[in-house]
Amino acid sequence: MRLYNYYRSSASFRVRIVLALKGLPYDYEVVHLQKGEQHRGEFATHSADHLVPMLQLDEGTHLLQSLAICEYLDEVHPQPPVMPADALGRARVRALAQMVACDIHPINNLRVLNYLVKTLDVSEDDKNAWYAHWVTLGLDALERRLHEAQTGRFCHGDSPTLADACLVPQIFNAQRFHVPLQPYPRTMQIFDACMALPAFADSQPSACPEATA
Amino acid sequence: MRLYNYYRSSASFRVRIVLALKGLPYDYEVVHLQKGEQHRGEFATHSADHLVPMLQLDEGTHLLQSLAICEYLDEVHPQPPVMPADALGRARVRALAQMVACDIHPINNLRVLNYLVKTLDVSEDDKNAWYAHWVTLGLDALERRLHEAQTGRFCHGDSPTLADACLVPQIFNAQRFHVPLQPYPRTMQIFDACMALPAFADSQPSACPEATA
Repeated sequence: MRLYNYYRSSASFRVRIVLALKGLPYDYEVVHLQKGEQHRGEFATHSADHLVPMLQLDEGTHLLQSLAICEYLDEVHPQPPVMPADALGRARVRALAQMVACDIHPINNLRVLNYLVKTLDVSEDDKNAWYAHWVTLGLDALERRLHEAQTGRFCHGDSPTLADACLVPQIFNAQRFHVPLQPYPRTMQIFDACMALPAFADSQPSACPEATA
Repeated sequence: MRLYNYYRSSASFRVRIVLALKGLPYDYEVVHLQKGEQHRGEFATHSADHLVPMLQLDEGTHLLQSLAICEYLDEVHPQPPVMPADALGRARVRALAQMVACDIHPINNLRVLNYLVKTLDVSEDDKNAWYAHWVTLGLDALERRLHEAQTGRFCHGDSPTLADACLVPQIFNAQRFHVPLQPYPRTMQIFDACMALPAFADSQPSACPEATA
């Protein structure tokens, strides 16, 4: 398999975590977003949406969208599972994942922040306030849900799931924008439990080849 | 089951479509977003994120996030299926659904447009340009993918899936903002095929109780 991704992309980070949790080897292909590489060459030909990540399977198929890629990996390489065995558990894990992937991350993406600054002439302060507004709303909701009984050492029970693979990159992102995280003790406890695992620690942006290049 | 939703909410519309495709009866509970009802009362108590839709099951559990709700319904009420039987097919349908649910809709949501106008003082013209920018980028990508061989009468093959349940509400939304849709012939062919089905037509905003009240 070949993963087209970028070290600072939260969505890419999710897939790196799931690949690592499952111990699946892959080729690491850098798509440098800030150089606009997502709009050029072979990557752009195969990626309809010009977004990372994209996973190329050995038989040639190109999979798009981080959550769809993670669920595919879980279905085809079920051990260790990143989705619960019961339908209600899966619904909860998917909802937690989507609270990050649909309600926080898309609004605070690089391309959206660029549009605010370059097209709408929004000031640096107002851009940072925008970022903090959406991440705070989203983490408030997540923290409320993480007080439910189904939460364990991780977002759902005592082993990491797709929800944790979404949560951790979002926290990295919030830290990069200096958003205060003290109001989220349950969330941060889970973040720490995740980061104690090599699958999470070894997938973090600073561990990626283009971060150190 | 009880669906907490709002006629103009695209995410609610997705769930109404899937419930209708499966012929599942439910109580229709209006949460009037423009009156701020999502932040008050019983709904706010159970909905961590104060967003519609929320589905209350007969046994009491409250499910959040439209895509998670739709997949739950498909797992528990599998006939007729809205997900393909094979892992690659599911990955494609989920990716198409997420191209709408992660890359278009969250950026063009009522709450985001309100922030642009009320907090950032963006003009009506700039707000409409913002809307058109993201929906156009997203539909460009979707149209490219819908030229793949797996597309049939619907987004994936010849029966409706979760991808169609996301596509149709997004087109309604784009039409409401007068976004030109001629550049998307394949997408619009599928939209028309969907709207010829009662499950889609009877779930549209104008057919909802609060639209006619």
